[in-house]
Amino acid sequence: MRIGIVAPSSRFSEAAADRVRTLAAAQFPGLDLVFHPQCFLSYNHFAGTDDERGDAFVQYANDPAFDAIWFARGGYGACRFAEAAIGRLGAAARDKLYLGYSDGGYLLAGLYRAGFPHLAHGPMPQDVMRDGGEAAVSRALAWLDARSAVALEPGLATGMPHAAFNITVFSLLLGTPLEPNLSGHILLIEDVAEHMYRIDRAMFHISANPVARGLAGIRLGRCTDIPANDPDFGEDEETLVRFWCARAGIPFLGRADIGHDCANKVVPFGVH
Amino acid sequence: MRIGIVAPSSRFSEAAADRVRTLAAAQFPGLDLVFHPQCFLSYNHFAGTDDERGDAFVQYANDPAFDAIWFARGGYGACRFAEAAIGRLGAAARDKLYLGYSDGGYLLAGLYRAGFPHLAHGPMPQDVMRDGGEAAVSRALAWLDARSAVALEPGLATGMPHAAFNITVFSLLLGTPLEPNLSGHILLIEDVAEHMYRIDRAMFHISANPVARGLAGIRLGRCTDIPANDPDFGEDEETLVRFWCARAGIPFLGRADIGHDCANKVVPFGVH
Repeated sequence: MRIGIVAPSSRFSEAAADRVRTLAAAQFPGLDLVFHPQCFLSYNHFAGTDDERGDAFVQYANDPAFDAIWFARGGYGACRFAEAAIGRLGAAARDKLYLGYSDGGYLLAGLYRAGFPHLAHGPMPQDVMRDGGEAAVSRALAWLDARSAVALEPGLATGMPHAAFNITVFSLLLGTPLEPNLSGHILLIEDVAEHMYRIDRAMFHISANPVARGLAGIRLGRCTDIPANDPDFGEDEETLVRFWCARAGIPFLGRADIGHDCANKVVPFGVH
Repeated sequence: MRIGIVAPSSRFSEAAADRVRTLAAAQFPGLDLVFHPQCFLSYNHFAGTDDERGDAFVQYANDPAFDAIWFARGGYGACRFAEAAIGRLGAAARDKLYLGYSDGGYLLAGLYRAGFPHLAHGPMPQDVMRDGGEAAVSRALAWLDARSAVALEPGLATGMPHAAFNITVFSLLLGTPLEPNLSGHILLIEDVAEHMYRIDRAMFHISANPVARGLAGIRLGRCTDIPANDPDFGEDEETLVRFWCARAGIPFLGRADIGHDCANKVVPFGVH
């Protein structure tokens, strides 16, 4: 099985690639990981210019030699080319699995809107750089290798369609040509490094948008590395997500085992 | 002329109120400034609970004894009660002038959508706490007192409707019941204390939303107190706003004399 890795957002590193290659060779010898040279480009904030990132994504997605596309890392930048790139994808791109999260959500959203059937929210190569991050990358590789059930988020409801996004990313794609139709879906959400007032504000935005009316429910993953609020916000992420769900009439279905951390589980989009 | 002051967002202070009262008494003796006691409440991040902030706003807006409502300061919190509060406003509220900016944009947006004719983006009492902030407050008072033309943003186009918002606030009300119809409008935007990548991401969101298709143009105010981007973003705010405007086919009409600073000028909504 051949996995093409591209970096749609922030700069990636050779060091992270080496660690992922080593780990994959030891644990999943049947996987052939191919890091696109674009992963190691650097342009300002990004892993190459918008054209370089978009072209690499389109090239590998359209190449029938690859079985899956794995996003190297998040950060910021995928929204700058996602719509145009998705418009250039052909039939070979539709057969593939796509795996990533965080800023990669812009691509997952646009691909889901375009009817791509094999998308999943889950760990990325960059996670190997976390303390204990090999566990996250092994989980992603197990999913890529054999759709291993042990990689899955444990609370997925049988027969129900799901999707998973970073709260801030999801908020900032609503109303754009990347917004997916999530009617009847259970939406899993998580965030990282956002002040609590920003999470509250994003949840206002999400819950007051038309997308909220169709949701079957929301499950809240982890919100980590939250900077101190001055003054203290006085509510934690679960309190405020429950608040906005109640106001919008969205069922709050509990917590979810996803987040910007080593324990982040895989959430396939649609009905698993 | 009687001005009712309420605090729809973050905590306000007696110290700021005292300085504004002193300044107004010296320069505009015809103005009667009434700070609602709610301004000095404190609940977590906010100037009182959602109900306390919403009730104070509705009370003063519906009171025919007031000629204008002035928002005490920004911060965060107006989105939590804006829709419900605007729904409780009667005829006396519609005759008034409303002045504020930053987080107050949630209320200005919802009021404009509801057809309120006398709204303006401009300095707030809290601005008195800036170095040289008396100039900003004097400008706002001159506008409240006599709609003084010297307070106006100097580039407003004759006969054209305008609106002005904080970039982040505007982005995070799109698609909600607070989104105003800005068809044919020149939109003035500014921001403060947001990383350049966040401003870029918000401009993706704004320019890719339906609201962008109807705009007559965008003018860019100041983006101040921008935290350092790591790595450097490589583009300044004008470069990236021009980029997103060009992509969306929105005319970029130059800079605007608004921002989170002492020079912030008044922008009346609609045709002035």
